[in-house]
Amino acid sequence: MASSHIYSAFDEELKFLARRISEMGGLAEQMVSESVQALVTSNTALAQKVISDDATLDAAEREVGDKAVIIIARRQPVAADLREIMGSIRIAADLERVGDLGKNTAKRVIAVQAQGVPRKLARGLEHLSELALMQLKEVLDVYTTRSAEKAKSIRERDEEIDAMYTSIFRELLTYMMEDPRNITPCTHLLFCAKNIERIGDHATNIAETIYYMATGAQPEGDRPKDDTANTVTASVTE
Amino acid sequence: MASSHIYSAFDEELKFLARRISEMGGLAEQMVSESVQALVTSNTALAQKVISDDATLDAAEREVGDKAVIIIARRQPVAADLREIMGSIRIAADLERVGDLGKNTAKRVIAVQAQGVPRKLARGLEHLSELALMQLKEVLDVYTTRSAEKAKSIRERDEEIDAMYTSIFRELLTYMMEDPRNITPCTHLLFCAKNIERIGDHATNIAETIYYMATGAQPEGDRPKDDTANTVTASVTE
Repeated sequence: MASSHIYSAFDEELKFLARRISEMGGLAEQMVSESVQALVTSNTALAQKVISDDATLDAAEREVGDKAVIIIARRQPVAADLREIMGSIRIAADLERVGDLGKNTAKRVIAVQAQGVPRKLARGLEHLSELALMQLKEVLDVYTTRSAEKAKSIRERDEEIDAMYTSIFRELLTYMMEDPRNITPCTHLLFCAKNIERIGDHATNIAETIYYMATGAQPEGDRPKDDTANTVTASVTE
Repeated sequence: MASSHIYSAFDEELKFLARRISEMGGLAEQMVSESVQALVTSNTALAQKVISDDATLDAAEREVGDKAVIIIARRQPVAADLREIMGSIRIAADLERVGDLGKNTAKRVIAVQAQGVPRKLARGLEHLSELALMQLKEVLDVYTTRSAEKAKSIRERDEEIDAMYTSIFRELLTYMMEDPRNITPCTHLLFCAKNIERIGDHATNIAETIYYMATGAQPEGDRPKDDTANTVTASVTE
């Protein structure tokens, strides 16, 4: 009876961590979505909201970390239970980073608002963020089901985001070459696009952590990666 | 006798983690230093070396993580010992990210080598990396002594790096406006400067983790931060 009571309390503690992580995921998604919306509509009030939301996410990460250490010390879990807790810490750290990337984008809204974001480019950034958010949403769904199979398939889809980022990168360079007045705003947009691209990397990290929680192993092989934006050398003649 | 034997084996395991982290720190420092050297001297062979060194750092991080979980499961540590192990995982993750940032810089060497890095700018980037590496070196020294006091003081020095990054950011924008042929290489240099600036953030994270390992608490208050580069809007008229 006593041991079943202990088990159930432990179970509650694990559920607490899982609930906090789902909440963190929801807030991180919202921050990213709102930061891009603020950027393409030059909405500084919305940007300010994203910046202040980041403190909530930071506090949640600290709470998950502190709680995890307390649970390990008190329950001395092993095997799958221990992996569950260690995985929670890693996922919370990735979600906190996603929120940071949203905040970084929001901070640049002020720098680009004077000229606004060109319509064509706004569509590209929105589409990039939709892809990144879709990947994040799927990985958070996989977190609830703990399917190693699905976690592995998400990990293989980051390439699409990378390819779109490279295309936006090229487009921004072109705008900058067309008119020097575009240089400052487009530079900030380059960093915004990079922020969004990196959300895909964090979703991939989370997928790898879920795979580890479910199986105790790291997924094999390198993650697929399209790195071409790092070496883009757009032609400036004509 | 048996318990002293167990204690000493546990001690050896903790020492193993600490040794691996020091090795990771040394490799991460070397990668950053070589990536900047490769960048300012357009040395693609050295850049290639940095890129392949990253696999060693990734493997070391996984080893620390796996070993940490095994130690927790086997020894069921609490209090300071548990914090020591949890802290090792976090520090290993930060050092792995520092290596990634070095690798990212190395990857851009190819993109900028055609035009090379302007002498004046090279000096700026070297100086920025010296500051970041000094901060990293100091934090790794503090890791060996576990001084909470020193960890706290390092955390307060990231501002200097941020201010220098902002100045390089402005300078790069100016070069881009002067001549459209500078746009592509300077864009890559912007990302390199950002990579180096972020090394300072990771050194600060490590300082916070050391403070946590030593005291069981997070350092109080926000970390000092100069974010002005996010809102730079250089004038293009004249």
